[in-house]
Amino acid sequence: MSEVSGLKVAIVGAGLIGRSWSVAFARAGAEVRLYDAVEGAAAKSLALVPAMLEELHQAGLLNEAPSAILPRYGLASSLEEALAGCDYVQESATENRDIKAALFSDMEPFISERTILASSTSIILPSLFTGHLKRKAQCIVVHPLNPPHLIPAVEIVPAPWTAPETVSRTRDIITSIGQKPVVMMKEIDGFLMNRLQGALLEECWRLLEGGYAGVEDIDIALKEGLALRWSFVGPFETMDLNAPGGLADYVQRYFGGFTKVLEGSRHRADWMASLNKAVAARRERVPLDKIADRQAWRDRQMVRLAKFRKDLPE
Amino acid sequence: MSEVSGLKVAIVGAGLIGRSWSVAFARAGAEVRLYDAVEGAAAKSLALVPAMLEELHQAGLLNEAPSAILPRYGLASSLEEALAGCDYVQESATENRDIKAALFSDMEPFISERTILASSTSIILPSLFTGHLKRKAQCIVVHPLNPPHLIPAVEIVPAPWTAPETVSRTRDIITSIGQKPVVMMKEIDGFLMNRLQGALLEECWRLLEGGYAGVEDIDIALKEGLALRWSFVGPFETMDLNAPGGLADYVQRYFGGFTKVLEGSRHRADWMASLNKAVAARRERVPLDKIADRQAWRDRQMVRLAKFRKDLPE
Repeated sequence: MSEVSGLKVAIVGAGLIGRSWSVAFARAGAEVRLYDAVEGAAAKSLALVPAMLEELHQAGLLNEAPSAILPRYGLASSLEEALAGCDYVQESATENRDIKAALFSDMEPFISERTILASSTSIILPSLFTGHLKRKAQCIVVHPLNPPHLIPAVEIVPAPWTAPETVSRTRDIITSIGQKPVVMMKEIDGFLMNRLQGALLEECWRLLEGGYAGVEDIDIALKEGLALRWSFVGPFETMDLNAPGGLADYVQRYFGGFTKVLEGSRHRADWMASLNKAVAARRERVPLDKIADRQAWRDRQMVRLAKFRKDLPE
Repeated sequence: MSEVSGLKVAIVGAGLIGRSWSVAFARAGAEVRLYDAVEGAAAKSLALVPAMLEELHQAGLLNEAPSAILPRYGLASSLEEALAGCDYVQESATENRDIKAALFSDMEPFISERTILASSTSIILPSLFTGHLKRKAQCIVVHPLNPPHLIPAVEIVPAPWTAPETVSRTRDIITSIGQKPVVMMKEIDGFLMNRLQGALLEECWRLLEGGYAGVEDIDIALKEGLALRWSFVGPFETMDLNAPGGLADYVQRYFGGFTKVLEGSRHRADWMASLNKAVAARRERVPLDKIADRQAWRDRQMVRLAKFRKDLPE
């Protein structure tokens, strides 16, 4: 019996993200019902789950056989059926504000006062599609990195009217399935992940624009350098561990240096102006018709990394 | 016989970074001579090498026994002795412009017209301590992430007068020992690594300052999220693989969203104003007297990660 045994989850929107979410919930012991507004889409998505579970099983990433997990899956042919009696809804529909606002309206009649309505959106502020609901206090953004069944961090973003109880229960549910919640105290464009990513990307485009380094070298700096440390220690801990007196000492020593760097980085990079150069560099590395192969390579590496991290001693 | 067999390297400044460099060179087959201006320091440093090699050997990170590598080490009691007949000098002395300028002057008489004079500096522009030399065309910054023997990326930064031939030979040498060169076309404050790091840190302080998230949550977003992907695909490849039509398509789709995010990020964060809050959060996680334990933990994890990556199928 898993610790989340008994948790009933509705997956609304059964595409790539919804399916990955379903695996994250079901392998942890939750009962999962799949629904998609497009007729037949949920069944098609479910048909891909056994192979996904088998791959995870082969990689040593499951604690049970796929045959123990598959019976936790169900299909729903209507929103009402999907949401009946469920504790938690993970919506992963199209990234469109109006579609989400309408979908949340459609879901509201079928939930109890305890049900959490969570959206996977990466870019739409929760206040923009939940404010019209009676049960808006139960609505929240739960945005995963893709794919959630391989990447632990999940950001939890409340709207101004999201109840603290909704935030804390969401955090507990996400923790209970083995993901790592990142809880924001309030919403902001880009949430946390895309703000960090945007800040980094912007500096990359700036370096490219200024002719300081090429696309491939910038990629190497991150993937063979900075990201290796960062995959164990976050930004604050990195600073904390890199000066004898910890974080306070680090800021004392290096704030001046970073100020010099940052003062030279205040202009917006013109991504469009360097785009042709960047695209040419990428196409030289990977032709457009090989991108799918490279994605598959990345996904295999993510599976191996997940296994490595699962087995790491503390 | 290694491909770098015969390469003669002088390590000038035998502290933590110099010692790590010495291991990176010696295990690849180079002959390494250690020198430090502080009497006895080079010998003390060399005395720590056998245990380092043994740890790497146990971790499966060496292709030879430590006993095959140790004979490549030598000690030098003067700069002249250190540099005699060597192809490449890796200077890792104190991070001080005047000290480096004087040291480079002191080294110049002892090198040939082919010798490369490389500095490990992370913060001093090469133009600031090499311009007075006759052999300034042979000077360059070769800045590793710490420790270089576990983190492949190394940034190579020319001064305006560094010869193209110096850049390309440095790139070849760094590649030949199994590191991953990141070649800048010209110098800029922070080089590449600390500009990327600075941009990310600045956004973290901004999020903390604005009360959007706490220190621990921001750390989790990176170490359990973004950094996992980034440890396989750099920023440009990440964009390239995340839209059906590659990088051009990605920028078309998401530039507007990032612009919104970035326009809200143009004020400088006041690191000092949030410092007490950040330090309190860190001290709650790791007391100051446990920082050394946590550094040791990070270093063990970096060894394990290096082994994982060494064994990864392409």
